[in-house]
Amino acid sequence: MGIFTKDIKTMDDLFVHTLRDIYYAESQIVKALPDMIKKATDPSLKQGFETHLGETKNHVKRLEQVFKMHGIEAKGVDCPAIDGIIEEAKDVVGEVADTNVLDAALIAAAQAVEHYEMTRYGTLVAWAKQMGRADSAGVLQQTLDEERATDSKLTKLAEGQINRKAA
Amino acid sequence: MGIFTKDIKTMDDLFVHTLRDIYYAESQIVKALPDMIKKATDPSLKQGFETHLGETKNHVKRLEQVFKMHGIEAKGVDCPAIDGIIEEAKDVVGEVADTNVLDAALIAAAQAVEHYEMTRYGTLVAWAKQMGRADSAGVLQQTLDEERATDSKLTKLAEGQINRKAA
Repeated sequence: MGIFTKDIKTMDDLFVHTLRDIYYAESQIVKALPDMIKKATDPSLKQGFETHLGETKNHVKRLEQVFKMHGIEAKGVDCPAIDGIIEEAKDVVGEVADTNVLDAALIAAAQAVEHYEMTRYGTLVAWAKQMGRADSAGVLQQTLDEERATDSKLTKLAEGQINRKAA
Repeated sequence: MGIFTKDIKTMDDLFVHTLRDIYYAESQIVKALPDMIKKATDPSLKQGFETHLGETKNHVKRLEQVFKMHGIEAKGVDCPAIDGIIEEAKDVVGEVADTNVLDAALIAAAQAVEHYEMTRYGTLVAWAKQMGRADSAGVLQQTLDEERATDSKLTKLAEGQINRKAA
């Protein structure tokens, strides 16, 4: 998309742009997670991140399936939002001295990522349904459900053990 | 916070850092909303953004109250996440030619902002409770509830009318 060229003329254009945005975001998350796995101390948190890395790789594949359904090439666009969220995660995590506090910081960072994905997938599902594309809405909904489940698991882990160890 | 100086040593340090992060974020949202109000076409959406601008100014005041409760100066820190989310909102909105599609894009952008706030306030409430600070947890919870309510209102508005007009 060229800046100031007003390339988004229809809902379909906006849908495709947002699909490319989250496709780029998922690929950046695949790159960021291994470092979070390495830095996590709590075994349940480490395992949770590992499981989520597997899921994220599958989300990339699902997006490729949606691109195919819409007859368009699977490619990303710049997504300053996820770049900022990941940059901030790295900054904060790099500032933490204590391993228990680090686990709490890692969970907070991961939940910021999850919330970004939840909002984008939520929007994409609503738009796909509105455009009569039950096929792609269904595929995107599967990922949305997994992101929500991951966020809930992280909340439980934080409130159940990580925050207590860190406080 | 200095980069690579490991300034976050305790949960309290992490709490204060995150408080400063969302304080900066809220101030950037106060600056960004007037342009979104100006660009919105649908009267309910315009009104919704105006109401939210008033709420956001109140969230800033609540954060100042929390800083005071913890005996620390109210100040922000760089928050690349909100900067990225707002930058992306401006990029996408600048690309849209049609006013109905623009309203749909504005709602999606606003929901990305809401989700960022929801994740940060959710984390702060959990940490405040864990540290035995029911006083600040209560104040932060009020804002969290308002952010969630705003997000729900935006979803209803999108699914009820905006997306239909745009499609």
